[in-house]
Amino acid sequence: MSATAKKSKYSPGVLSLLPIFYVTWSDTVLSPTEIKLIRKRIQDLTFLTFSDKRQLVKWLNPAKPPSAEDFKEWIKVIRKHAPEMEEDEKMDLSVLGLKIAQASTSGDKDEVWRAPRTRKALKEIEEALGIESEISKVLIQTKLQPESSTVEISNEGSFDPKTMQMILDGKHGELINRIKQLLRDPVFEHKIIRDKEEHRLRVLNQVKLLADQGISKFAFPEKYGGKGDVAKSIAAFEGLSFHDFSMLIKFGVQFGLFGGALYGLGTERHFEKYLEDMMKLNLPGCFAMTETGHGSNVRGLTTTATYNHDKKTIVIHSPDHDSGKEYIGNAMHSRMAAVFAQLMVNGENQGVHALLVPLRDRHHNLLQGIKVEDCGYKLGLNGVDNGRIWFDNVEIPKENLLNKYGDIDEDGHYISSIENPSKRFFTMLGALVAGRVSVGIGGNTGAKSALAIAIKYAIKRRQFAPKDGEQETLIMDYPSHQRRLIPKLAKTYALNFALHDLQDFYTKQYGTGEMREVETLAAGLKAYATWHATETIQECREACGGKGYLMENRIADIKGDTDIFTTFEGDNTVLMQLVAKALMSEFRDNFNDGGYMAIIRFLAGRFTTSITELNPITIRNTNAEHLLDEDFHRSAFDYRAQKLTITVGQRMRNYLKRRITPYQAYLRCQNHMQTMAEAYIEKIILEKFYQKIAETEDAACATTLTKLCQLYALDTMQKHKGWYLENDYVTGNKTKAIRRVVNKLVQELRPEVLSLVEAFNIPDELLGARIVT
Amino acid sequence: MSATAKKSKYSPGVLSLLPIFYVTWSDTVLSPTEIKLIRKRIQDLTFLTFSDKRQLVKWLNPAKPPSAEDFKEWIKVIRKHAPEMEEDEKMDLSVLGLKIAQASTSGDKDEVWRAPRTRKALKEIEEALGIESEISKVLIQTKLQPESSTVEISNEGSFDPKTMQMILDGKHGELINRIKQLLRDPVFEHKIIRDKEEHRLRVLNQVKLLADQGISKFAFPEKYGGKGDVAKSIAAFEGLSFHDFSMLIKFGVQFGLFGGALYGLGTERHFEKYLEDMMKLNLPGCFAMTETGHGSNVRGLTTTATYNHDKKTIVIHSPDHDSGKEYIGNAMHSRMAAVFAQLMVNGENQGVHALLVPLRDRHHNLLQGIKVEDCGYKLGLNGVDNGRIWFDNVEIPKENLLNKYGDIDEDGHYISSIENPSKRFFTMLGALVAGRVSVGIGGNTGAKSALAIAIKYAIKRRQFAPKDGEQETLIMDYPSHQRRLIPKLAKTYALNFALHDLQDFYTKQYGTGEMREVETLAAGLKAYATWHATETIQECREACGGKGYLMENRIADIKGDTDIFTTFEGDNTVLMQLVAKALMSEFRDNFNDGGYMAIIRFLAGRFTTSITELNPITIRNTNAEHLLDEDFHRSAFDYRAQKLTITVGQRMRNYLKRRITPYQAYLRCQNHMQTMAEAYIEKIILEKFYQKIAETEDAACATTLTKLCQLYALDTMQKHKGWYLENDYVTGNKTKAIRRVVNKLVQELRPEVLSLVEAFNIPDELLGARIVT
Repeated sequence: MSATAKKSKYSPGVLSLLPIFYVTWSDTVLSPTEIKLIRKRIQDLTFLTFSDKRQLVKWLNPAKPPSAEDFKEWIKVIRKHAPEMEEDEKMDLSVLGLKIAQASTSGDKDEVWRAPRTRKALKEIEEALGIESEISKVLIQTKLQPESSTVEISNEGSFDPKTMQMILDGKHGELINRIKQLLRDPVFEHKIIRDKEEHRLRVLNQVKLLADQGISKFAFPEKYGGKGDVAKSIAAFEGLSFHDFSMLIKFGVQFGLFGGALYGLGTERHFEKYLEDMMKLNLPGCFAMTETGHGSNVRGLTTTATYNHDKKTIVIHSPDHDSGKEYIGNAMHSRMAAVFAQLMVNGENQGVHALLVPLRDRHHNLLQGIKVEDCGYKLGLNGVDNGRIWFDNVEIPKENLLNKYGDIDEDGHYISSIENPSKRFFTMLGALVAGRVSVGIGGNTGAKSALAIAIKYAIKRRQFAPKDGEQETLIMDYPSHQRRLIPKLAKTYALNFALHDLQDFYTKQYGTGEMREVETLAAGLKAYATWHATETIQECREACGGKGYLMENRIADIKGDTDIFTTFEGDNTVLMQLVAKALMSEFRDNFNDGGYMAIIRFLAGRFTTSITELNPITIRNTNAEHLLDEDFHRSAFDYRAQKLTITVGQRMRNYLKRRITPYQAYLRCQNHMQTMAEAYIEKIILEKFYQKIAETEDAACATTLTKLCQLYALDTMQKHKGWYLENDYVTGNKTKAIRRVVNKLVQELRPEVLSLVEAFNIPDELLGARIVT
Repeated sequence: MSATAKKSKYSPGVLSLLPIFYVTWSDTVLSPTEIKLIRKRIQDLTFLTFSDKRQLVKWLNPAKPPSAEDFKEWIKVIRKHAPEMEEDEKMDLSVLGLKIAQASTSGDKDEVWRAPRTRKALKEIEEALGIESEISKVLIQTKLQPESSTVEISNEGSFDPKTMQMILDGKHGELINRIKQLLRDPVFEHKIIRDKEEHRLRVLNQVKLLADQGISKFAFPEKYGGKGDVAKSIAAFEGLSFHDFSMLIKFGVQFGLFGGALYGLGTERHFEKYLEDMMKLNLPGCFAMTETGHGSNVRGLTTTATYNHDKKTIVIHSPDHDSGKEYIGNAMHSRMAAVFAQLMVNGENQGVHALLVPLRDRHHNLLQGIKVEDCGYKLGLNGVDNGRIWFDNVEIPKENLLNKYGDIDEDGHYISSIENPSKRFFTMLGALVAGRVSVGIGGNTGAKSALAIAIKYAIKRRQFAPKDGEQETLIMDYPSHQRRLIPKLAKTYALNFALHDLQDFYTKQYGTGEMREVETLAAGLKAYATWHATETIQECREACGGKGYLMENRIADIKGDTDIFTTFEGDNTVLMQLVAKALMSEFRDNFNDGGYMAIIRFLAGRFTTSITELNPITIRNTNAEHLLDEDFHRSAFDYRAQKLTITVGQRMRNYLKRRITPYQAYLRCQNHMQTMAEAYIEKIILEKFYQKIAETEDAACATTLTKLCQLYALDTMQKHKGWYLENDYVTGNKTKAIRRVVNKLVQELRPEVLSLVEAFNIPDELLGARIVT
């Protein structure tokens, strides 16, 4: 034996088989068949001594597998010899075994370990065991050359977050940031307050402070102390949405809903008397539209407002329990309510109108005939005092009718500038549009805040190391974590631009009377953005694990508070139906009216929408350049929106031809219509995103925004890949290629995530999450 | 003019065009092109008088469209004449117009209205306007014969809910129902308690009452006062999960986790001393495993337990802030903790072991070296006292080591019956399996409760009528609402059976040491069921609108409380990775150990899994019988699970061949593996459901269960239709056919929904929702 051999506790024969044994045992379990096979082969090996065989067979006992010490020794031996070898040899278990055996013998005795038949015998064992050589090489290699620690991915983004922030904020950035600055003041500090009375009082005081700062004044004319800048009123709401949502909603109820009804539906006489007090919160008011029995179906409200010509008064009355107003924000603090009721003049119902009804006196005592009940605790927004209100023949002066679109003249006749009652109703409801735009933006801010917390946490938090003793991996570096958060981050960016564009569009159309298209977009984007928020916040909660469940890290509050966004200001499902009906009636005037009749008229008319012929080459094109191309995305989104519209139309025609009633036909297509509305909204979001990118001057920001937009586009297509495949718009190879490109985009965006959430510019005081501050 | 004509305010010429005008104007908007066209045609009509033309042209002024009165008059006229006509004539706008015109003239003057050329001219107008005749007929018909009110769908199901309940409850129904009965006692009444101290105290007292009832004893041997029936301990958990989740979790922490560690990891000496007090809640304890720094990666815990042979003591120590135990339930009430720490014996780390560490004395004062901090408020479960615990060199007697699997002998040497440290670790962690089974069941009960509330509400709540004056539609009768709730109800049923089957399997394997497969299933079903719960509860919250947001209707609480189920007892994403690794290593022993190395060994071995050739006829078969067939469902689910396993294997091999390190290869396949694990779990659920149906004797229940199972199968396939299409398992026509069958199943199940939730048998006191009680 040579000097080397003395150092080894194993004979050359055992050594020759060590690499095979090592790989075979590497998962610590051998199947009976494997054991039987290897045992038999070992007995046949002539170059092994009896004691070699005994030793090796001992190692094949499943009841007593090689010990951890044995394993360590094997690795030591293998490692010692491997470095001297050529890369290729080292990667072959038989060659490796033989080299080790050779090294342990003196020169004159090593012939057998050089003999081709020895190698052949070993190779046969290897093959019989089904050890695939390429893979087993990797296995050996891994143990021999400890995998170098993963190179950490940098969190230095490729663009300037400040520049990106300006792009995100858009034209009202200055106001948004001024408000954020204001909210850093200690009076606004996040506090966990469990008692609703205490919480409500605090929020009330905070809203008063906001009013003192003049933030309440944007939507109202200068003549009455306002600032006459409706776009800024929405921007102010955006700024506030980065902080406590109870405060935001209380603010929105007072100045947006109550103030909006006052200004949007009232006239001079109301402005003179109430606007200033309303803006200063000296007159706390509420927006009493929803009833227990009627939420989505506002036209079906049952509260009555009956005109009495003799007394020139109007009597407000809740005929039953279910006609009580419910979920009314500010109900416990208000002195006045804008009540929506069926206006009865001379025994004739003129439809829903809004009227100012005093609720309490200056000492906060309820007035006669008013009953108010607290809605109690809710899943969130417990700083908002939601309540129920009933009216028992409450008499108010005729002047309290908010009479912009409908009035009662001196002779006691109902008059209106809008003859069509349906059109009148929807014009009055226009007051809700600003609310929907705002809620959409607020929801998206909720998603931003949650993503900022989850991503900042994920680039600090480590869990599981590639191997013992190495640094654990950042959870942001797990593909599963990236898939959770990065596509949602991209969609949040996408929605940011679409919502700002809607805000501009709203501002442009404001007061023109041409609001149908704005209303449709507001309905659709509100629904889409708030569903996205709910989903994203949930994902962020889970992505933060237990930390996400603790109130101190704010996600829990964001989640509870924004959950109702999918319901209030219009139930999302109902809103998506509105969008669908509007699309089918081509934005015609009364899509809300009956809805399905307008659609049938649409079907009765020319039905010329056609979609481009599909190009068989495009269908198959899996080229990355093509998949990332704006034209491809636009075409795919357009195709989906159009095709769905056509197929809904075809289905409905077929039902009608089969004499199915229009209402039933409409019901049968309801889910189809919902999908169609979604496709339309997704298409709009894509268009607005690309538009924004085209306007972006900063090259670095434009590059990252392009990746985000591509990710939004392809991730959305991937969600709908079943549909695209069904419709032969793409082949299976193409959808698989899309998946690969999505993964690639997610990877490429990984180093940008910190900068992307920094661009949301949420000060720590507002973010309010202990884990990341 | 005849007598009839005198009654009409319109001339025969005008009347002849009325039906066309009515349809044209039915959506109140005419495009400029339409107006131009119709104007020109009217001028050309020789049978019209000058005043006819003037009248008709007047009605074409978009600035002043026909008034509501005009419209009403038109309908009156049309309606008057239509009933006398044949069905077919009535449906033709030109014929209808001419009939009306004829009726208004005396016999001698009506030739012109019978002349074919007159009819031809009218027909031309109709066609030029693009009015599609079939559809316009429907439009007319609808106005003429007011659509009869929709026939209400019955809520009388086709089966007996009591029988179904017994099938759902399974073999432990009696215990489950006894517990439900107990929980109806006023001491358990739902209360909204906002202050955590008050809430925790109430829950503590309630858990004590449950212990007094002996409900805590099932998992423990009779020798120590237990009942020795581990299956019932899980059934008890199920019974409790129909009520307040804070109480449930507090109960689970004390008896399941603390009790489980004590009994599962300890020996005689611990049982004698502590079991009885633990079961009676005289010894409140906690399960101190998770640390701030290490949650999912339990092996990486940094708390140390250092043996001192001289003193025969062990010193428990938290080296830094992040090694503090976190989220520990019962931390504020406990007198003792089962602490998981790295056991150091003679300077060598023997891995994670559990030790009993006293926290407080009998007067509830903290012992020396113990620091406890309240985790504060959470999104839910605020009746559970979660806290953080740090140990500053806390000395405990050696006997406090829970020494079932690892001990220190008299000579101060570490000894264990399980030599492999990795195997030992996972054996010890086996204590978590019962917890995972239980949490899965608890999550599914959360889904049941939310569905019971949402469905009972949806069959009471009406919104929007087909037309004015008619009864509004039940929201349960909207397809969008059905799609929201019914597939989720089906999946909840599916999970019920899969989870009970797992419970049986666990019970069977309990104590045999053969727990790998149970562990894999428990991990997968826990993750799948709790994700399903989160999704379902969210859907139910939204389906109840504002009512779902109010605490008084309980969904808010169910939502907040169960949200953490996706995180605790193993983060769902991590659990799904465990499942995937286990599948790839064919349930080999140490799939948890290193994980990806075992997979590579698997790849290095025989890779023989193969999937059946696809039959081209089956791929295209859209026959409903085939689509509803059990074999089709099983094959489809098997195919998906198998194919995903094969493709993950192929991808990983390719990475390895390209010399990508195993860890990196594993990371790259992580999302793919997650999908594979999901497919496997879905397949198991399907199998268990069909198995249950085969065992069901009651024919009516079996019929409905079959529909639910078919819906679960096809709805799941529909979710994955992109994948099935990509893999050419089905054609686009087939996925479309599946969608139709899904809709049909949903419709067929609509009348069963009330019975289906009644079969959950949740007493009103437990359901706790004001809207449905």
